[in-house]
Amino acid sequence: MSGSTFGTLFTVTTFGESHGPALGAIVDGCPPGLALADADVQADLEARRTGQSRYTSQRREPDRVRILSGVFEGLTTGTPIALLVENTDARARDYERSRDLFRPGHADYTYLHKYGRRDHRGGGRASARTTVAIVAAGAIARKYLRGRLGIEVTGYLSGIGPYDLECVDLPAARRNPFWCPDPGRVPELEKYIDQLRRQGDSIGARVTVIGRGVPPGLGEPMFDRLDADIAGAMMGIQAARAVEIGDGVAVARQKGSEHRDELTPSGFLSNHSGGTLGGISTGQDLIVHVAFKPTSSIRIPARTIDAAGRPGTIVTTGRHDPCVGLRAPPIAEAMLLLVLMDHWLRHRAQCGEVVAPLPDIMKGQRAGPARGRNA
Amino acid sequence: MSGSTFGTLFTVTTFGESHGPALGAIVDGCPPGLALADADVQADLEARRTGQSRYTSQRREPDRVRILSGVFEGLTTGTPIALLVENTDARARDYERSRDLFRPGHADYTYLHKYGRRDHRGGGRASARTTVAIVAAGAIARKYLRGRLGIEVTGYLSGIGPYDLECVDLPAARRNPFWCPDPGRVPELEKYIDQLRRQGDSIGARVTVIGRGVPPGLGEPMFDRLDADIAGAMMGIQAARAVEIGDGVAVARQKGSEHRDELTPSGFLSNHSGGTLGGISTGQDLIVHVAFKPTSSIRIPARTIDAAGRPGTIVTTGRHDPCVGLRAPPIAEAMLLLVLMDHWLRHRAQCGEVVAPLPDIMKGQRAGPARGRNA
Amino acid sequence: MSGSTFGTLFTVTTFGESHGPALGAIVDGCPPGLALADADVQADLEARRTGQSRYTSQRREPDRVRILSGVFEGLTTGTPIALLVENTDARARDYERSRDLFRPGHADYTYLHKYGRRDHRGGGRASARTTVAIVAAGAIARKYLRGRLGIEVTGYLSGIGPYDLECVDLPAARRNPFWCPDPGRVPELEKYIDQLRRQGDSIGARVTVIGRGVPPGLGEPMFDRLDADIAGAMMGIQAARAVEIGDGVAVARQKGSEHRDELTPSGFLSNHSGGTLGGISTGQDLIVHVAFKPTSSIRIPARTIDAAGRPGTIVTTGRHDPCVGLRAPPIAEAMLLLVLMDHWLRHRAQCGEVVAPLPDIMKGQRAGPARGRNA
Amino acid sequence: MSGSTFGTLFTVTTFGESHGPALGAIVDGCPPGLALADADVQADLEARRTGQSRYTSQRREPDRVRILSGVFEGLTTGTPIALLVENTDARARDYERSRDLFRPGHADYTYLHKYGRRDHRGGGRASARTTVAIVAAGAIARKYLRGRLGIEVTGYLSGIGPYDLECVDLPAARRNPFWCPDPGRVPELEKYIDQLRRQGDSIGARVTVIGRGVPPGLGEPMFDRLDADIAGAMMGIQAARAVEIGDGVAVARQKGSEHRDELTPSGFLSNHSGGTLGGISTGQDLIVHVAFKPTSSIRIPARTIDAAGRPGTIVTTGRHDPCVGLRAPPIAEAMLLLVLMDHWLRHRAQCGEVVAPLPDIMKGQRAGPARGRNA
Repeated sequence: MSGSTFGTLFTVTTFGESHGPALGAIVDGCPPGLALADADVQADLEARRTGQSRYTSQRREPDRVRILSGVFEGLTTGTPIALLVENTDARARDYERSRDLFRPGHADYTYLHKYGRRDHRGGGRASARTTVAIVAAGAIARKYLRGRLGIEVTGYLSGIGPYDLECVDLPAARRNPFWCPDPGRVPELEKYIDQLRRQGDSIGARVTVIGRGVPPGLGEPMFDRLDADIAGAMMGIQAARAVEIGDGVAVARQKGSEHRDELTPSGFLSNHSGGTLGGISTGQDLIVHVAFKPTSSIRIPARTIDAAGRPGTIVTTGRHDPCVGLRAPPIAEAMLLLVLMDHWLRHRAQCGEVVAPLPDIMKGQRAGPARGRNA
Repeated sequence: MSGSTFGTLFTVTTFGESHGPALGAIVDGCPPGLALADADVQADLEARRTGQSRYTSQRREPDRVRILSGVFEGLTTGTPIALLVENTDARARDYERSRDLFRPGHADYTYLHKYGRRDHRGGGRASARTTVAIVAAGAIARKYLRGRLGIEVTGYLSGIGPYDLECVDLPAARRNPFWCPDPGRVPELEKYIDQLRRQGDSIGARVTVIGRGVPPGLGEPMFDRLDADIAGAMMGIQAARAVEIGDGVAVARQKGSEHRDELTPSGFLSNHSGGTLGGISTGQDLIVHVAFKPTSSIRIPARTIDAAGRPGTIVTTGRHDPCVGLRAPPIAEAMLLLVLMDHWLRHRAQCGEVVAPLPDIMKGQRAGPARGRNA
Repeated sequence: MSGSTFGTLFTVTTFGESHGPALGAIVDGCPPGLALADADVQADLEARRTGQSRYTSQRREPDRVRILSGVFEGLTTGTPIALLVENTDARARDYERSRDLFRPGHADYTYLHKYGRRDHRGGGRASARTTVAIVAAGAIARKYLRGRLGIEVTGYLSGIGPYDLECVDLPAARRNPFWCPDPGRVPELEKYIDQLRRQGDSIGARVTVIGRGVPPGLGEPMFDRLDADIAGAMMGIQAARAVEIGDGVAVARQKGSEHRDELTPSGFLSNHSGGTLGGISTGQDLIVHVAFKPTSSIRIPARTIDAAGRPGTIVTTGRHDPCVGLRAPPIAEAMLLLVLMDHWLRHRAQCGEVVAPLPDIMKGQRAGPARGRNA
Repeated sequence: MSGSTFGTLFTVTTFGESHGPALGAIVDGCPPGLALADADVQADLEARRTGQSRYTSQRREPDRVRILSGVFEGLTTGTPIALLVENTDARARDYERSRDLFRPGHADYTYLHKYGRRDHRGGGRASARTTVAIVAAGAIARKYLRGRLGIEVTGYLSGIGPYDLECVDLPAARRNPFWCPDPGRVPELEKYIDQLRRQGDSIGARVTVIGRGVPPGLGEPMFDRLDADIAGAMMGIQAARAVEIGDGVAVARQKGSEHRDELTPSGFLSNHSGGTLGGISTGQDLIVHVAFKPTSSIRIPARTIDAAGRPGTIVTTGRHDPCVGLRAPPIAEAMLLLVLMDHWLRHRAQCGEVVAPLPDIMKGQRAGPARGRNA
């Protein structure tokens, strides 16, 4: 409603700023009886955590999550689950210099126009640090969807600057600091990032998220389509500037005879649509791509103004990621998990008694591993 | 909530199917005192209407809208505005052949999985005909935003198949059947569409929408960002497969020194971001691109199955657009107008008393006409 | 959101004014596969209709409803159901006298303060005529809840002025113009109303609604409790000034040893709570009472002012009910049906997989007929 | 959405159980620039706190609140405000006896039916302890409404068992443990409660809340009426069984000539309506009464069953209030504050530009102190 709540039935309400005492979320609407412990949530936070490699920001946060409610004797009770992560390494002094000057590419200028004031420390509420709450909430959705429906959501880096990355080994992506699905190319990327850092510059990236095992039928086919909700969810991640589903921007150049996915009794013959038709899941893989802009906080000076409108020059020297996209895969996974969880509950609400006359034709095809570009 | 309502404060709830008796919408939350007549809404419906050229579907509908409530003595009263458009040219017999076979690329298969049944006539609720209600609702938002805030929202065709179209004359786009912003290229496009039609094929397209005159400060900066809501709105249009804001997918290849928009006392020096930072409007032009897939209903036969899972072949011969993208600009305009209207009210609710210390630096720059690519 | 939509999953959005061209509703979220025809809705509208007896307003409206969408071949499709009722007997000239003067007890004064203007004809949007849309929507919920869950919702007049009415024959209530559950007392009430009419006065009333067959477990136990949502729904009916559940206001004088409903293996021993505990249904009868104020539009002159603040005197001579409470039972039934329908879907969404360890102990007791006061 | 969020624009999402590690709320949508410190919230928590007298539960909790976000340099920033209260005196062993047996009058039975499991310790999520989060959130609304609009919301005990209490000194109510607005009668009440406690019994109560200084025009006049939202808010408080506005249940016996509030240029002549007409505030005092049932946990044995359906007898000996109504005034105040705050923002959103032709006629009358019964 007021902008910090996501979802209709499985709702996530987050709070917290980069340099406040804590961040967290209230997850409401989780089905009861789900086995859940701090460790389940912690696992996803680890994947997101900063300081894990020299290729990302050097801020070191343990990001220890505590479940404050909604779990009793190891199982969810159906009541709200509060998740709390305290900030421990919030060096606000790094930001005193940017107190007055608007950082180009950041929300400083727009927050001031909206609210008349702003918490300048580390971007305040606009900081990507707020995604810690999203990733924590997504971990609960992941536990439910995996255990009950066999849904797996996996993100990886599919592009960074001049490099396009093939998905040759999807599970490997989570095991290298670049979320690179083609592990052999990691040294090349390391070299590239090191060079950027020396230049004091940053680079954009493209992240792909695959949802596998999604049953057909999820999505409300007017405004709350599955694809529309995914697009809104992904564009809501800091620095996102494009969301594509299936063939994405390429469809503008395709012919109908080329794009449409034909059906046979043993499944669709292709997946140009990316897993939805008419806003409803087909049972094929959901394929989502998100383009992230480069970090705006870099060492190269930029022209800007202050809150009084006076011109100035800004140089950022704090702890920053040379490529925010390297941090995005677990966040994009979390957003897709939240959308799927919400739509699963919404679908069950309205259509819980529906028996489709036709079985899910794609069921047999979901056993195998992901292959090729965009999985 | 249940999928057919859009917006938080300026809410639009639509109903209707391609071949039912009527379509329409209830618009709730409109400020009182707005001068509004049927003709204001009709104007936008004309822009959307089929049958206006030989390049779009030959279904001929007068699409006469009636305002049933919420207006008294020519002014809105603040109570819900109901909009009704009756269907008059609904030739359901055209669709008897597709009653059993799923049309590839359409929602037939997914509706059946979701609901266990479907209105097969013309795609039922999944038909693009349902956008008549969206365009009608958008017309009300347009009247308010233009009159009260000076906001202008304009869409055009920026790409179709192999053609990229420069925005050389934005106002001209509305005056040709291709919404082409480079009128000199219309003959070329006519020839291309005629050729496609002879082949019985269709083509994808890219549509751009520009929001000009948007004040800085609109957008709720966590989940309900202005950019996130725009992305969700656009991906919710039938056939959309990608949404880009500002430089869009290209940002994945950009460096920070290249992308960030520097500020000076007289405005931003560039608009790579597309008009939002941190999910909040900057006061620059909002720049949104949407990629639409090609029509799936074409004369070239396709493999498919029926509801019993038996294989078959389908050929579509009814009235269809060779390029749905040619119909999309007024729909995309309407969606952007609805998002802006809702966010204007949301912003006023929370921040109605805020006086930003800094004036809108872009104000002076919004007087001139749009120029160049992507306006 | 904007005030004219009710429900979270089974949503009803209404429009229309007393003297506009039409009234209606969009019902979104109805499960697919429900057999539904105009006649199902018409039946409830007949129960509500004016002009059915000389004890209620003499406005004569056929109130013919048309389903415009969401039903295909006799079954709901799962897409929005639009309901339209055209106004045919809207004699606006009756209201020219009240154009300037505020009618005491009516919304004229408050609408002017809120919106700066108002449709004065028959109360405009504030008219009880708008409940036609609510009753129509409730009829759909009734069809579903009755057919699928065996829930019956029945309203009756439990008090009017000095008369308290015992529920001796619940089904009989719908068959007399007073909704009186003790048919032998109807002549007494007729005499009373005739006398009031001669005096040019009006009288308040108390309406009771019983929900029978409600399964245990419905309700979200913090803000969206079943009882809270019922209270909000009932207080939202025009002229309602009190809502009681179970023993209602009397609980303020009860002792704990007297109020609490003890449990045995064959059921609760009493139902002071009125069918909810902790905001969740117990499986007992839901018992709801609503007090309605007397009609304010009467022939006895009243002091008032006009929009310029000048004093005046107003006398109402148009068609009005001497007791709005006589019209309220079907409206209160509809509101309870809408609340139950929404909560049934909400419950299925979150708890669709829950198997309670204990069976519903009240199940056996729901077979028999209602007895005694407040059933 | 999922039941634990209240409000549309000023939203409060709560979490926490009686015996979990902490309780709290996220308040989203607060206007920026409001001076807010922990102490502002603490003041209202003190009013609610247990252990303050021997007439309420002996559980001793410091209820120290911490603001975790949304405030920077002493002013709200417009981003979510998280409020955290840690539980320190949660003696769960008191509840081991009630682990298996359902406590009559409590939510034990209904939670089990809904969720299939329950946190039995102190009622878990159903505990009135959860209102700590509501009171904390209400304190923020109070600060804003008082400072910006001059609205004062005050609750008091207007009835307990056989006693009716006149409002002779409204401010005094907050200064005695009974919230009694007629301080001379406190010794009588003390004696009554002592006697009840010796009997091991409990008693119901009636609480009244007055909203003074509310501007005319608040409320959305169909479903989201001000009175409807107040009714829903109050019935959502634990143990509430009736909500009355203005003359409440008495209106069922009133005549139109008696009930309607006449208008003069210097104000309304009476306030039977309780401050709303057509669901919109009139500018008069809002008058709300809530009836609370007696505590069900008493020392007098009661018949009940366990989760296996076996009969048993239960006696409650833990720390409990002999009259929950004595704890309710600050909670009812908080709920009214939240409703008013939300409606103020909603009103500003839609009608921020409205200039009513007539000034608020009641303005002059709001200066004086409350007098007489129901203020």
